[in-house]
Amino acid sequence: MKLFNGQKLESLDDLLIEQLEDIRDAEQRLVEALPHMADAAGDPQLRDAFRHHLEETRHHVERLDQAFQMLSREPGSSTCDAMKGLVEEARDMVDAEGAAAVKDAALIAAAQRVEHYEIAAYGTVRSLARRLGRDDVASLLQTTLDEEHAADDTLNRLAESTVNPAAARA
Amino acid sequence: MKLFNGQKLESLDDLLIEQLEDIRDAEQRLVEALPHMADAAGDPQLRDAFRHHLEETRHHVERLDQAFQMLSREPGSSTCDAMKGLVEEARDMVDAEGAAAVKDAALIAAAQRVEHYEIAAYGTVRSLARRLGRDDVASLLQTTLDEEHAADDTLNRLAESTVNPAAARA
Repeated sequence: MKLFNGQKLESLDDLLIEQLEDIRDAEQRLVEALPHMADAAGDPQLRDAFRHHLEETRHHVERLDQAFQMLSREPGSSTCDAMKGLVEEARDMVDAEGAAAVKDAALIAAAQRVEHYEIAAYGTVRSLARRLGRDDVASLLQTTLDEEHAADDTLNRLAESTVNPAAARA
Repeated sequence: MKLFNGQKLESLDDLLIEQLEDIRDAEQRLVEALPHMADAAGDPQLRDAFRHHLEETRHHVERLDQAFQMLSREPGSSTCDAMKGLVEEARDMVDAEGAAAVKDAALIAAAQRVEHYEIAAYGTVRSLARRLGRDDVASLLQTTLDEEHAADDTLNRLAESTVNPAAARA
């Protein structure tokens, strides 16, 4: 969410476009990071969850491109500083040494921060699109928002049922 | 959530401490950022919400120090890269030019990303503390988690009832 020099927020349309550009950069960064997170996961269910979410995340980028088309706009380039930081943190967990189950718990912690970032971001753009009378765009973004919630729920379930109990025995 | 050179995740206790140190740095960064966000807010209710959350955030730092005491640990220094990025994004919105109501909507967007980061982070440490049989620490962290959820709800309410409708007229 970085404004270019001179870029102004004159209307809610400006803000919606700026926010969509920010999320697009964030999702692209996540597409790069998730394979490393999957490879670093010790628990096979967690590895599968990361791989499944990688596929979803690729679709999220496509949906964002579709949203830009629906709004008759070209996505400009943007740098999402927050996702840059979130991905750095996740990479730190990928490279961490220690017990495999504890590292899995750390990967889940990093991934849930990412999911919540996206939940906030998609919640915002969905509401802005709806406010601007673009229920078609809002509905597209809601689909992704639902998937981010589901991904967070999966990570919660894995942490509680499998990963954290194993990590507590480490 | 940055591990020092050589710092290892051997146990769930290690992870809990590392996560608490990360959140402590994040909250301290937020204490620095919120006054600027309050000053930049055009809507008086939004300004009040940021000021109110600044007071809460100061308490959150105190609660974290209390958690470290309960765990008989000294908090080490940590750099929360994600909150660094989130605060940079928020500052970008503070400095943005444009219509006041649109800028308010942008400040809310940035603040909700911050709240969700914290919701994820406190959800993790609350669960880790509980898994480690430290219900006393878990309950303290739950209090903060509830306040982060309430802060996010307040921002949602303000966006929907006041700020976004005004921004849509800009």
